[in-house]
Amino acid sequence: MKLSIKKNILIEHLNYVIKGISNKNLIPILNCIKFELTSDGLYLLSTDNEIAIKTFISKNEIENIEEKGEIVISGRYIYDIIRKLPNEIIYIEELIDSKVKIYTSNSSFNLNCNNPSEFPQLDLEEHKKPIVVKQKVFKNVLQQTIFATSNQESRPVLTGLNLNINDKLVECTATDSYRLAKKMIELESKIDENINIIIPTKNLNEIMKLFSDDDENIQLHIFSNKIIFKFSTITFMSRLINGTYPDTKALIPTDFISKIKVKLSDFYDAIDRASLLTSESDKNTIKLESKNNLLIISSNIPEIGNVEEKISCEKENKEEIKIAFSSKYMLEALKSLECEEILLMFNGEIKPIILKNPESDDLIQLILPIRTY
Amino acid sequence: MKLSIKKNILIEHLNYVIKGISNKNLIPILNCIKFELTSDGLYLLSTDNEIAIKTFISKNEIENIEEKGEIVISGRYIYDIIRKLPNEIIYIEELIDSKVKIYTSNSSFNLNCNNPSEFPQLDLEEHKKPIVVKQKVFKNVLQQTIFATSNQESRPVLTGLNLNINDKLVECTATDSYRLAKKMIELESKIDENINIIIPTKNLNEIMKLFSDDDENIQLHIFSNKIIFKFSTITFMSRLINGTYPDTKALIPTDFISKIKVKLSDFYDAIDRASLLTSESDKNTIKLESKNNLLIISSNIPEIGNVEEKISCEKENKEEIKIAFSSKYMLEALKSLECEEILLMFNGEIKPIILKNPESDDLIQLILPIRTY
Repeated sequence: MKLSIKKNILIEHLNYVIKGISNKNLIPILNCIKFELTSDGLYLLSTDNEIAIKTFISKNEIENIEEKGEIVISGRYIYDIIRKLPNEIIYIEELIDSKVKIYTSNSSFNLNCNNPSEFPQLDLEEHKKPIVVKQKVFKNVLQQTIFATSNQESRPVLTGLNLNINDKLVECTATDSYRLAKKMIELESKIDENINIIIPTKNLNEIMKLFSDDDENIQLHIFSNKIIFKFSTITFMSRLINGTYPDTKALIPTDFISKIKVKLSDFYDAIDRASLLTSESDKNTIKLESKNNLLIISSNIPEIGNVEEKISCEKENKEEIKIAFSSKYMLEALKSLECEEILLMFNGEIKPIILKNPESDDLIQLILPIRTY
Repeated sequence: MKLSIKKNILIEHLNYVIKGISNKNLIPILNCIKFELTSDGLYLLSTDNEIAIKTFISKNEIENIEEKGEIVISGRYIYDIIRKLPNEIIYIEELIDSKVKIYTSNSSFNLNCNNPSEFPQLDLEEHKKPIVVKQKVFKNVLQQTIFATSNQESRPVLTGLNLNINDKLVECTATDSYRLAKKMIELESKIDENINIIIPTKNLNEIMKLFSDDDENIQLHIFSNKIIFKFSTITFMSRLINGTYPDTKALIPTDFISKIKVKLSDFYDAIDRASLLTSESDKNTIKLESKNNLLIISSNIPEIGNVEEKISCEKENKEEIKIAFSSKYMLEALKSLECEEILLMFNGEIKPIILKNPESDDLIQLILPIRTY
């Protein structure tokens, strides 16, 4: 393998694949990046067996492809070296004895390589009929839901995001059994078969780092044990979580005793301040009470003090509410809502609290109350 | 105590005193901030007994001083509460039973207070004849020297910065016995007696956070066991380290076998890249060799690979050099030099390396070589 390439182009793509390397992996080959130089261009590939990231630099972006070939190099070293080289043309040349030389006019690195045949063989094939969504839309889905997934390995299915696709409707559900986030999006064209998968949250956090802010499409290629995302020059593979996701439909009520409309920023700031006098050992409990057109939010830590916040609200019915919940969960749910005003909906002090945009049913946040009264 | 004050004014000053609180202190009163309201204005004070920070808000900046008095409140809570309150007028009112009420139009906090008589009595008196330096100059001294102090408690005197003041000359020395940084500044007026003190590095790191970029003066009030810095509205006290600082004058050579001039940024970048193939277990050793008008920098980690960097230089004599040193120490020393070109001076492979600005002797960086050849 022998090529020359501009530093800024190579580092842009190394920036993608380096995210597939954990550095903590005990198997050295999984801390490596595979360079695959063909007559079409250069493929870079990394994997820890849980995820795989592949990117492609077309021959038009490469100065010179002198000799095709494959090398496998320590990801952390090659990344830091390229990053610190000056912004000029970099020469990469495979030597005998599993070594590679990386050089510019004044710098010359010789690195030991790994055997390309030891690098995991990855099946990154495409599906005949991928699902297509806008990158922006999918990023939004993730930001609005995955915070509600569980980090307890005791129930693995809850550590991922459930995608349930039927016809044109995609239901994305995340829950840790104390709260639930559900977002619905509509596809442009309908799919033939029902899809019901669970994608690990930690892998979704990685793919989010690769998204740009543009309006490009993502292709979702879904298989029985993996999902492959294709966008821009990138192919991202994630394993799926085995198991059956709980049916959450029955959890979300449709009728409510009480509906209250508040300004989102006022409500957020009041909860945020009241949360200062809550403690994790007490589940960050705060109390909410309505009195006519006023919401009263209060909390206390006995040895420190107490707080009371008042904000005005608009009630749709006369019923007063009195409920307690985790301020942490409430703040996270509120962050996901992108609207001026929100609707808080209640069915009494021991029933789930629902939050949503009054104008839309696309995103629903559910929080279980804490019994204190 | 009862007053009202704009949020942005109070938070600016809380930002200063909060830095005097470690949060890890096991004595609760040392995690507190003392509010002292007099007819002149409001004093805020924090201390962990090692340092103390005091700031003053003049009555002109306070909306209303209704009742003078003193309260002592948990620093972390009062800071977070004021920070999260909206940008309006905040009312603070001492209640009976050691409580304080902090409120705005919609928020109301009641906090438990500590007994002001339990707060450490601090003697922050002024010296008759303080030493005066520009804030910028003093900040520069710290940035150029304290990185070279030791973090090994086995020799306490080396964990601080030595200030030796004689007549008009201030010599600031930092060393961990493997390298040394020395900066000299001149005072505008001379002092009567010789001063030789050691200020703990960790306290200097705290005071640096309080410096602004303006050209204001700092007063240094030096006593036998403490130093008090006064600048802007702030009084900062630091304990001194007991003990005799080693005499380092004899360590810095005045004659050299070899002097080499290089462009600082070229030299820094080359060392920075070569440092990628060094390891802490091997003292981050890199090698430097001169060959006519070329400097060759090299290093290796056997299992990973090796690197060679070349940069052009200007030699003042024919003697070639061949020496090894810690790349970490070299990079830190280079960062302190603010010039286009630097002078590297040598007396053979086992004698100290000296770095300085060719145009000035104010700042000297010394690094001991590592024997490898």
